[in-house]
Amino acid sequence: MIKQDIDDCALISRGKYFELITTDSINQQTHIPVGASPENIGRFFGAVNLSDIAAMGGIPEYFMAAFNIPSSLDIDFIDKFESGLNEILQRYRVEYLGGDSKENSTISFTGICIGKALKTNTLRRSNIKKGQIVCVTNALGKKISAYIAYKNGIRTKENANEIMSIEPRIKEGEIISKNGGRFMMDLSDGLGSSILQMKKNYGLGFRIVRDQVPIHNHLFHVCQISGIDPYNAILDYGGDYELLFSIDNEGSEETAAKLRSMGINFSMIGDVWEGENILFDGERWNPVNSIGYEHFRTID
Amino acid sequence: MIKQDIDDCALISRGKYFELITTDSINQQTHIPVGASPENIGRFFGAVNLSDIAAMGGIPEYFMAAFNIPSSLDIDFIDKFESGLNEILQRYRVEYLGGDSKENSTISFTGICIGKALKTNTLRRSNIKKGQIVCVTNALGKKISAYIAYKNGIRTKENANEIMSIEPRIKEGEIISKNGGRFMMDLSDGLGSSILQMKKNYGLGFRIVRDQVPIHNHLFHVCQISGIDPYNAILDYGGDYELLFSIDNEGSEETAAKLRSMGINFSMIGDVWEGENILFDGERWNPVNSIGYEHFRTID
Repeated sequence: MIKQDIDDCALISRGKYFELITTDSINQQTHIPVGASPENIGRFFGAVNLSDIAAMGGIPEYFMAAFNIPSSLDIDFIDKFESGLNEILQRYRVEYLGGDSKENSTISFTGICIGKALKTNTLRRSNIKKGQIVCVTNALGKKISAYIAYKNGIRTKENANEIMSIEPRIKEGEIISKNGGRFMMDLSDGLGSSILQMKKNYGLGFRIVRDQVPIHNHLFHVCQISGIDPYNAILDYGGDYELLFSIDNEGSEETAAKLRSMGINFSMIGDVWEGENILFDGERWNPVNSIGYEHFRTID
Repeated sequence: MIKQDIDDCALISRGKYFELITTDSINQQTHIPVGASPENIGRFFGAVNLSDIAAMGGIPEYFMAAFNIPSSLDIDFIDKFESGLNEILQRYRVEYLGGDSKENSTISFTGICIGKALKTNTLRRSNIKKGQIVCVTNALGKKISAYIAYKNGIRTKENANEIMSIEPRIKEGEIISKNGGRFMMDLSDGLGSSILQMKKNYGLGFRIVRDQVPIHNHLFHVCQISGIDPYNAILDYGGDYELLFSIDNEGSEETAAKLRSMGINFSMIGDVWEGENILFDGERWNPVNSIGYEHFRTID
């Protein structure tokens, strides 16, 4: 019953709007690298939940939280965590409505974000259609590069904090939803996991062109040192929280120009077709390689 | 920032209605007694969340969940847990909207229940007023008696399952809200904790009359064996999830008769006044004795 949602949020019909509700947990085992500041962990906790609202073109309005934490947890940690969470909620004018707090032996924080989107502008994944042009905001791999470095023993505070420093693409999501966006999702779990889900749920594949994929400089640098292929890295690891979306093929240049004129930085990386996923210039992708899930694998 | 909410749910204004949202977690350390069946744990998980909607006179409509669970957790446990959860959601016609699942070293389940209540019928705690008659549904202490037995080493499956077999008072909450109820809350945390919260938030005390408090037979029986005072037990321990509510003093007999004629089983146990809490016939209550919180203290 508990399954990956078909969309980034659950939808409840409210007149002309959909109410959007999402829940996302972070916990000690999976998400919190040693050295990350409590403030940054709190911001990250808020941001991953807000990102799900952004991924449907919505505006976040309310936030709730459930803390399951050890009684031994330093009160100073909680204060700083909450200060980071507050900061991001205030930045996006999201009202905090309270929640629940329980004692448990390990930390898990569950967030709930409630937002809204005009029904006509809600970018559901089911809007995917053959022929659409596939786009991604900004560049992929900055978080991944910090994660690879961290996993390889470079456990600096800078790397730990970089992993957690994500920005929910609220403004981008809203603009894209109003100006020609079709389907949309966030890349929390990596490009590979995302296109696998779309293939599974809608039977449509992606043809991604290697040279069009915007890779962050940091990732090239870390991959050079570690010997990892940067294109495999962006398939297999998540954590970037950029938006993957489509626009219609017809008029795509005009749509792209309009989005760019409104400040959206994005790349057109391929198209949607009826066949299998073909990634990076004709190479058919073997999905068993994909391990991109839960942002990163266990952080230990 | 994470605090006990002033009401059992957060409220969002939606036309003539309040949308009611609550989140409640259960976890390994605090809530799950050894021997409880997975189905029963799933039902309990649903019920504690639905109970918060009932406590405001609302109708539950949607449910979401976030699972933080070990990868080693038996899939059979999860299946049965979900089957118990499904059962209670279907019984109250609550739609499951999905959620999130993450890996962590200990179990915590966070539920989110979304419901609604007409604004005119929403029984907020701030409706408390001097002179109101204080009432409680059904009898207190059946869960507490099982918990006391469990804590004293009688760890039978029956006791473990009895602790978890709560029923959200949805029907009762709705009828009370439409027929003279004033403030309302559920007794998840015990009578002592509830009246302390009301005193702290609204400055009003309760005068509870000993002979009027409906104590379940099981509690008398267990207290006789264990030497615990049953009245202290219902102050200090929660877990019953009965409704504590008030009606106006004026016309209280008529209101009570009407509620009874509609199938509500309840007792009038005292009144609201401006002084300190006086519990059980003139004895001023020393709140430092109260340990009623988080349903039960840690289950170990």
